[in-house]
Amino acid sequence: MSRFDAVGIGNALVDVLSHETDEFLVEHGLAKGGMTLIDAQLAEGLYAAMGPAVEVSGGSAANTMVGIASFGGRSAFVGRVSDDELGAVFAHDIRAAGVEFTTSPAKEGVPSGRCLVVVTPDAKRTMHTFLGASAQLGPADLDHDLVAGAQVLYLEGYLWDEPEAKDAFREAIGGAHAAGNRVAFTLSDGFCVDRHRAEFLELLQHDVDVLFANEDEIKALYQVNEFDDALQAVRDHCEIAALTRSEKGAVIVTRDEVHMIDAHPVARVVDTTGAGDLFAAGFLHGLTRGYDLGTSGRLGALAAAEVISHLGARPEQPLAQLARPLLAG
Amino acid sequence: MSRFDAVGIGNALVDVLSHETDEFLVEHGLAKGGMTLIDAQLAEGLYAAMGPAVEVSGGSAANTMVGIASFGGRSAFVGRVSDDELGAVFAHDIRAAGVEFTTSPAKEGVPSGRCLVVVTPDAKRTMHTFLGASAQLGPADLDHDLVAGAQVLYLEGYLWDEPEAKDAFREAIGGAHAAGNRVAFTLSDGFCVDRHRAEFLELLQHDVDVLFANEDEIKALYQVNEFDDALQAVRDHCEIAALTRSEKGAVIVTRDEVHMIDAHPVARVVDTTGAGDLFAAGFLHGLTRGYDLGTSGRLGALAAAEVISHLGARPEQPLAQLARPLLAG
Repeated sequence: MSRFDAVGIGNALVDVLSHETDEFLVEHGLAKGGMTLIDAQLAEGLYAAMGPAVEVSGGSAANTMVGIASFGGRSAFVGRVSDDELGAVFAHDIRAAGVEFTTSPAKEGVPSGRCLVVVTPDAKRTMHTFLGASAQLGPADLDHDLVAGAQVLYLEGYLWDEPEAKDAFREAIGGAHAAGNRVAFTLSDGFCVDRHRAEFLELLQHDVDVLFANEDEIKALYQVNEFDDALQAVRDHCEIAALTRSEKGAVIVTRDEVHMIDAHPVARVVDTTGAGDLFAAGFLHGLTRGYDLGTSGRLGALAAAEVISHLGARPEQPLAQLARPLLAG
Repeated sequence: MSRFDAVGIGNALVDVLSHETDEFLVEHGLAKGGMTLIDAQLAEGLYAAMGPAVEVSGGSAANTMVGIASFGGRSAFVGRVSDDELGAVFAHDIRAAGVEFTTSPAKEGVPSGRCLVVVTPDAKRTMHTFLGASAQLGPADLDHDLVAGAQVLYLEGYLWDEPEAKDAFREAIGGAHAAGNRVAFTLSDGFCVDRHRAEFLELLQHDVDVLFANEDEIKALYQVNEFDDALQAVRDHCEIAALTRSEKGAVIVTRDEVHMIDAHPVARVVDTTGAGDLFAAGFLHGLTRGYDLGTSGRLGALAAAEVISHLGARPEQPLAQLARPLLAG
């Protein structure tokens, strides 16, 4: 038996969330719905313009690992913070959520990374990330036993912007496959796909077993206008693709199977930050615990629904408890 | 016309909130509902035991000043943070809320103060505060023009634990009275009252014009078992006393007037942190804008209701907007 169901590698970030109007986005020239990388100076300027904020631990793959732990799964995370207060907050929160996290904090001058999240009244999130210490992740931070001992290695596309992190990814992929484990990958963001399309396509064909993407991302990857065209293309490229479409639900597709997953009902959508991360958590929990693809997809939809019903990208209620009726049915 | 409606002096803290069970309190020997001062080491141990947390700016008098600004009032705050990330979070949030905040950050090794808030399923908060840089507030941090230029000087009892801060308080009281302004004071906490009863009684008789206290605090001050006994005692001790009793509402009492203020209805109480602070905000806003005592009390109840309906001790909705029906009526 593997020590872990999943190990995630990604940016270690604390989210700084504030509620703003759509006019705020226009005024500050922010691209709604996307994730933009910014430097320390821009981060300072944007933060100064934002209203009173709340700090909650985030990071895409980190959120997914927390989600898996909340379902009762065993997960671990590899990512870099600095030896500062936001780094301590990140480390505390992910460990308190039950995720194994042992990456040493960076000791040099770069502060821990943060993601400035502007939430508009329609509950959409617009993200600007100052990576800080998170960008310093490299092959030296990899724990090879950890990677070999997890059923699934989960990687976020966001980290592809950093050459050292890319090397760490490639090494981890090699280790996971050598141990007979699966490699899962999320495209993360449309702009991210635009920056790395050729490499992502190559990854998909050779290295990725389970792909996560939302509609915009998968269309951006294949440069098509119709979701259905992307769907046909992806079937030839990896074993399993889990494609999310917000309120339209999700599609799980393999060579031989297609599952349509309805969105789980939500009383009020407060903040969509983390929806994709938590869908991945539910799906991977199902997959690693031997549930069929349809049930795994429904666990994903359930986790996504929980996280969009409150501020912040990590579950507030134990997902294991919420999942009980679904798994008993 | 005064430059400010109110200037508050108090601890500059970032709240670190997590949801825990009552068993957690018992297991860690925490006194439910109170505020306990702890050192850096105890803070570290308690934080490690707490579950995933959210960071939101807090501090009692600071929350009150933010509440006044949210009503559309002009407020300022004096309090000390360190030149670190939590200090930057505190400064950002209070300024973004529209409160004047110019106290220089401490440059030495002590980190910014934080309040570890454990919220139990009954929405009650149990607080453990590591004061850090906040405890370094002294007379040198006072801006005498600021104090002279505010209709009301608002002081929190919590700061009475620090000799230097106490000196700053006495100096500020002198300045406020010399300028013909009112001095308001909150007893802050029952344990705080126990520590400083004699001095608080003296303050009340000689220096305080407007007193804020909840039922436990005012009973602790006069060492009586009946709220009514405390009520009779306080009438002789200061011009106006605003006494809050949670769901039983509040009583505003002067020599000649008594107003019974019903609690404002709340759909679901999520976290009572900040209820007293925001009651004070509404009441002081009413008082400084010339409303009668009853209306001022109802503004207090309204603000308290808003803040207990979500996590964190500062308003999420503009209080000016919520108050419109009340002030139009």
